[in-house]
Formats: sequence, structure tokens, C-alpha cells
Amino acid sequence: MQDTSQTICALSTAPGVGAIALIRLSGKDALSLVSACCGKDLTLVPTHTAHFARFRDTSGKVLDEVVITVFKDGKSFTGENTAEIACHGSTYIQQMILKTLLERGCRMAAPGEFTMRAFMNGKMDLSQAEAVADLIASESSKAHEVAMNQMRGSFSHELKDLREKLIHFASMVELELDFAEEDVEFADRTELRALVDEVLAYIAKLIRSFELGNVLKNGVPVAIVGAPNTGKSTLLNQLLGEERAIVSNIAGTTRDVIEETLNIDGILFRLIDTAGIREGADTIEAIGIERSHQKIQQAKVVIVMCDFGDLGSAAEDHLSMGPIEAMTWADTLVEQYPEKRIVVVGNKADLRPANQDALWYNCKAAFIPLSAKTGEGMHDLTAWLSEQVLGDFNTQTDTIVSNARHLEALQRAQSSLTAAKNGLETGITGDFVAMDIRQALFDLGSITGDISTEDLLGNIFAKFCIGK
Amino acid sequence: MQDTSQTICALSTAPGVGAIALIRLSGKDALSLVSACCGKDLTLVPTHTAHFARFRDTSGKVLDEVVITVFKDGKSFTGENTAEIACHGSTYIQQMILKTLLERGCRMAAPGEFTMRAFMNGKMDLSQAEAVADLIASESSKAHEVAMNQMRGSFSHELKDLREKLIHFASMVELELDFAEEDVEFADRTELRALVDEVLAYIAKLIRSFELGNVLKNGVPVAIVGAPNTGKSTLLNQLLGEERAIVSNIAGTTRDVIEETLNIDGILFRLIDTAGIREGADTIEAIGIERSHQKIQQAKVVIVMCDFGDLGSAAEDHLSMGPIEAMTWADTLVEQYPEKRIVVVGNKADLRPANQDALWYNCKAAFIPLSAKTGEGMHDLTAWLSEQVLGDFNTQTDTIVSNARHLEALQRAQSSLTAAKNGLETGITGDFVAMDIRQALFDLGSITGDISTEDLLGNIFAKFCIGK
Repeated sequence: MQDTSQTICALSTAPGVGAIALIRLSGKDALSLVSACCGKDLTLVPTHTAHFARFRDTSGKVLDEVVITVFKDGKSFTGENTAEIACHGSTYIQQMILKTLLERGCRMAAPGEFTMRAFMNGKMDLSQAEAVADLIASESSKAHEVAMNQMRGSFSHELKDLREKLIHFASMVELELDFAEEDVEFADRTELRALVDEVLAYIAKLIRSFELGNVLKNGVPVAIVGAPNTGKSTLLNQLLGEERAIVSNIAGTTRDVIEETLNIDGILFRLIDTAGIREGADTIEAIGIERSHQKIQQAKVVIVMCDFGDLGSAAEDHLSMGPIEAMTWADTLVEQYPEKRIVVVGNKADLRPANQDALWYNCKAAFIPLSAKTGEGMHDLTAWLSEQVLGDFNTQTDTIVSNARHLEALQRAQSSLTAAKNGLETGITGDFVAMDIRQALFDLGSITGDISTEDLLGNIFAKFCIGK
Repeated sequence: MQDTSQTICALSTAPGVGAIALIRLSGKDALSLVSACCGKDLTLVPTHTAHFARFRDTSGKVLDEVVITVFKDGKSFTGENTAEIACHGSTYIQQMILKTLLERGCRMAAPGEFTMRAFMNGKMDLSQAEAVADLIASESSKAHEVAMNQMRGSFSHELKDLREKLIHFASMVELELDFAEEDVEFADRTELRALVDEVLAYIAKLIRSFELGNVLKNGVPVAIVGAPNTGKSTLLNQLLGEERAIVSNIAGTTRDVIEETLNIDGILFRLIDTAGIREGADTIEAIGIERSHQKIQQAKVVIVMCDFGDLGSAAEDHLSMGPIEAMTWADTLVEQYPEKRIVVVGNKADLRPANQDALWYNCKAAFIPLSAKTGEGMHDLTAWLSEQVLGDFNTQTDTIVSNARHLEALQRAQSSLTAAKNGLETGITGDFVAMDIRQALFDLGSITGDISTEDLLGNIFAKFCIGK
């Protein structure tokens, strides 16, 4: 564990050259330290005030003209005295200012150390602190929403409710133990069982939400497969079109362009191996070849593309796959991969024979007719895609678990509570039931950090970026 | 020219993901605009105060918890009302906040537009504004020093002095013109000539400083040449050693590592084509081959490396070049490239025969004996290198011109003043002399922006980064 008595500093803005860079200091000497660097007493100024200053190195040479914002009286992110130095964004100036601060007795902050101090000083609980890192890493509106809700404490509140119910439960059982010789039952067993069922159902929902939370955080892998020349590249461009418009709308913001990601309704979809498709070639892929199967295996959502203008295997080049063949293939995929979401997209829907509709009703996969060229029916596809991910969850109102550590703690709590429930049903003695409940309380408490160890904290904050 | 009545916004910190990002707004509506975004009236708060706020998109959804710092009453960088939004540094949040600001009526700032507004509002002159961009781009202590001095106005003050002298001069000459028929001489010709000489000498020094300013800004190209196995790679590592120590000292600051740059006494040296040397191989280079000559042509400083343990062309492999041969080669180079600085570095100096000293005194290039292995004599080399660049300039006290636009203006002023001087000497009529002086005044004024055109401003600020 780092020494929390020391004043720490770090570059808090993205590395590299910008107009402005922000260097943050936190700790008891933060204000006297910057005061020494700029020959201006900032220890007595009110909190939340900004001050122009000439920042000097230890030899007295002016390094930069900066604006220093002071946060004190516990009213900072960390809860400690904090100074934020806004300097000109050259890497040279950033380095020289940090070097000066180190020479004056500051220490470089470890990754996440500012947030760890915020946690240690009770400014936020552990799940909120973890949400800060998720918030910074969020690339889509839904991932952002989940992290934001968690940072603002909605998950923490729900866990608090859960724990209070369980504490009430445990204390009733433990009360019985005190009077064990008299064989009284303070806790109404039926009521207890109902309570445990309620809590278990709630935990089950949280656990179930993890799949969504994880997918929102990391993106949904999607495979587009099908015969050549069925319009896969046109479909891809239609899907990408919307996203590009959003990005180019905000000139001047640079983003790491990860090719082949789609943002639909705020959900990030990662398209697997679209190299061939992007080139508009399609032709390098033969039907049902190994490569398609590899893509399908990595995917969570599979789009099987076919073309109502296609004659199918009757065609001369034998590379075609008509709609009926595509449907048959999709049916096989549904059986083979029951956990994947599979849709047959029928391109050139205007050419669809009217008398085939009954066939499609019986298809085990979803079926969406559209025109990749005109864009007709595209909305059906994007709506279907976002529905597959969100299911019956509402990311604005439901708590979504997106952290693997939280999932594990919930799973451990689930297993302890299931044991407690079984104990109640089989009439096991109260001390065992109470022990299981205490264990569940411990596990739930580890999520918010009511219970924490140095190792745990070290692990969590090491994953943060420096400066946060 | 951009519309200055609009409120502008931009990401001011480096692009990419960081703990914190800073988005800046400037313009008359800056404060009411952010107030609308966070449901908090920031139009009436005092200047230089920071405010916690929940930043909402136009639908009312909370995008982030931010800290907004308000600068008003003309006390901002631009001179206009300014708000700085410190948000969590995810690219998603950056984009959404900018998007919201645009939807609320802000406009994306053009490159350098904040600094241009600072210039338009009289917060700084043009040469100071240009120094802001240089400051941000500065990679070494000397480049930083030059930009910093210029930003703080030292160049502007000197130009002001020059112009005042010339105005005094011009008015005396023009006074004569008013009394032309009476044939009086108000201006003492000797005095006038002395003044013009003084100003011309000063401008010449400024012009001369450009070579240094340019070199400090862009780095000094250095070639290390010589026979294989003379210790070039050991020398390179010795030279690089110091720099690496400085960089690794400041853990956590990322910098774009440009391989093969050296920072000696705060001056950036760029080593040309050290690929072979860096691999420690040396052997792929034969003596005096085409490649060495290409390197020398690009260089400003040439280090010819030889080895006192080397037998020279008497050696078996015929790839060697003994010290005497190296000296002869260096002498040729001095004649061939009089504008380059050339030094012969004699490695394994302990093996140097005592009776050769006279030979080295006669060498036209500089000569530095050292041991690349032990580091002995390295300081002589680094001192020589920095002396070649700085010459008789003192970057802390002398004004160094580092901007090509300023150089051109100075050269134009020089030529007008030379014409005026010649006019005085040949006894040309006063109106021609006065015209030349007025032209010189115009050119000097264009440096600080006392005289400026829209085109000029557009050109200057287009080179800035966005957000500055």
C-alpha cells in the first residue's frame, strides 16, 4: 500500500501535446508545495478558486505561466488538499513541472492513487471508485450510462438495501441462538424463507445483468456471413454510415478509430473479420467455408446474409446460396449454437416471392427482409440487434453489473444464501444458517469496500490510469 | 476570418483517453451556455471560481460530473467570458459534451482561435501569440526558453524601442520636407546616419539570431561518421545515456520517444541515420562510402570518429581509417563544407602517441580526444557541441528570432533601412528617405501585429492546434 501521508502528483490529462495539460497534486502539502513553486501563497486562498501564476523551477527560472485551481477543506475529489495546475501542453513543460514538484518533495502518484485516496477518505465506496475507471474507458452511450449510474451510487444503494435485509434476517436467527435452550422461534420460518427467496431472486437478476454489462463494456462481437455478392458490403456501409456521420459531426475531436465497430442505439458492436467485406469483394469467400465457421464461433450475434435475386446452388458458379439454403443453414446454426443470436437477412426484399412467407415463419432463426441498397428495412435490423443485447433490461433504471469482481462476489453470496435457504428447508440448526448469511454479507460488503484488504485495493487501483 | 461574435468551444487537452479532459468555451454566451447545460446559474458567480456540476445533454440525461471554472470581467486568456469544463477523460464523454455544446449554439473553434481572440482583444501582440504555439511545440529547454521570452514580450519590447527610434528619425526628416523651400536641415545628417547604423546593426543581430532560433526550435542535425569499429555505437550510448536518465526519472509521463535525439545543455540534436550505429554493428559501413556523404550533406555538425588503436589503411581488412587518415578527411570536409561544424573525435585517447600532438594542432577541424568506453573527455565533446550552436548568444538575455515570418519582416526592414542609409549618403531628397523609413516601420509593425491583415492572421493561426 502506498504511503498516504505523502503528497502525490501526476499528469491527469491524456499524454502527448495539447493546448493545455493538467497536472494534479493531492495531499497535505499540496498547497504549500505549489505556493513554493510560484512564489504566491495559495495556502490561505478559498477553496474552488483559480489563480494565475508563474511556475518556476527550483533554480527560479520561469517554466510557464499557469492557472492553479485550489480545492481544500475536504471539498476535493480526493478529500485532501488538491491543486490543479493548468499549463501549456508541451511535453517539455509537463515534464519540467513534474520534475520540479518531485524535487520539492512530491511523489509520483501510482495508477488510480487519487481515486484510492477518495475511497480511503470516504468520498466514494469501492464500486463507485471502480466505476470511475469504467467511465473513462467507456466508448458508447450504454457503457457510459452503466458506469455513470454505478459511479453515482445506484448499485451501492441497492447493495445497502440487500445487506440491511440480510442483517435483519441474520439477527433474528442469531437471537434464536441466544435462547436455544428454550427452543423458541423468533424468526417466522415462512417469512424468512420468503425473504431469502426475494434476496436470491434479486441477486440472480444482478448476476444475469452481468452478461449485458460485460457486453456493453466490451462490445458485442458480430459476424456477417453468407454467399458472395449478396450485398454484405453494402449492408456494412449502411450500418457504418450512421456512426460516421456522428463522428464527423464533431470536427476537431480525435478518436482512436477502431475500424469495423458499430454504434447502434448506444451499444458497441464489434464486427469480426470484415476485411473481405470492406473491400467490397465478397468473392474471396466461398459458401460455408472454414473461415465463416471461425467467425461464427467468435460471434455472439450472427447475420446470415442472402439475396432474393439469387438463384441458389442452381446458379452456374456454384458459389451462390439462395434464401432457402440460407434459411436451412441458419436453422442448423440455431441448433448448433443455441447461445448465439442468429438472424437471416434477406437482401433485395422486393424480389421476394409472395408465396414463400409461410416458409420464413417456420425458420428457427430471426428473419429480416431489407434492401441494403435503398436502406429500406435497415431499421428493423438495427432494432433487432439492440433488442438482442438489451433483452428486458432498461439501462437507465436497472442496475447492470459490469465488473467481473462484482460478479464473483455476487456468485459467492448466491451460493451462501442458497445454502442458508436449504438449511432453512431441511431444518438445520440456526448457527449454520447464521454463518451462511454472515458469509453472504461479507461477500456483498466486499463489492462496496465495507470489507476490503490491502491486496484487493492494490489489485483494483493498479488497473487505473495514472493521474486518476 | 471567423465570426468573433459567436461562442466557440474545443477540446483543449491532448486528444485520447486520460483521467481528465478539459473543454474550453469562449465568447459572450459562454457562461449562459454552460449554465443551461448544468442547470446551475454560472453567469453571476465571481471570476476565477470552480464549480462542481452535473453536465446534461439536451435531453436532460447526465453525461458527467464535471468541474467548471469560470473566467470573466475580461480576466481570461481570450479576454472574453470563458468556461473551462474539466470532465472525465473518455473520448465518448468528450464528444458528447462537445456535441451538446454545439446543439446549444456553440461553434467548434478553428485552430488557434482562442489565441487569435486574445490578440484581437489586446491581451497579447502577434509575436507573443505566435510564441504560444512555439511554447507548446517546444521539446527542449532552450527552445522553451526562447518561446517563453517571446511570449512574455521581450521581443515585442525591443521592436517597440526600434520603432520609436525610427519614428523619431522619420519625423525629423519629414519636418525638413515641410520647410523644403527654405532649405533648412533640422535633422543633423551625421546624427541620422549614426542612428540608422545603430538600428541596422541591431536588426542584423536579430537576423543573425534566427539561425540559432531556428536550430533551437527544430534541432541540430548531426552526423557521426568514420570507419567501422571505431566505437561509434559506444559513443552514441554515452551521449544518449544522460538524456535517458532524465526521461526515466519522471515515471508516468509518457513522451513520444523520437529515437536518436540528444538533449545537450537544453539543445536538441537530431542524429542522422544512426540505424547501423545503434545496432552496434558499424561493420555495414565502409569508409567514405556514398552513405557517409549523404549523412554529411544533411548535417550541420559532423563528428568524424577515429580510433587511436587503429592501424589505418595498413590494416588487413582495408576497412580501417587511422587517426591521420581521419584528420586528412576532416580537413577535406572543412574545405568542401565551410558552413558545417566539423570535429574529429579520437577514441581510445590513452593510446595516442605523444609525438603526434603537433599534427593535431594543424588540423583545420576541431579535435577532441576521448574514451567512449570510460566516458573520459565526453564533457569536452558535449561542451563543444553546445558551443557550436549557441556561439556568442545568451538565450536567457538575448532576443532570439525563431520565426521565419519575423525573419522575413526583419530582412525587408533591413533592406528599406539600407536604402535610407544610402539615400542619406548620396544626398537624396528627404521624401525618398522618409518613404524608406516608413516602409521599415510597416515591416517591423507587421511582426507585432500593429499592422496586420485578415490573410496574415488566417495564415498564422491556421498553424495552431485546436483548443488553443
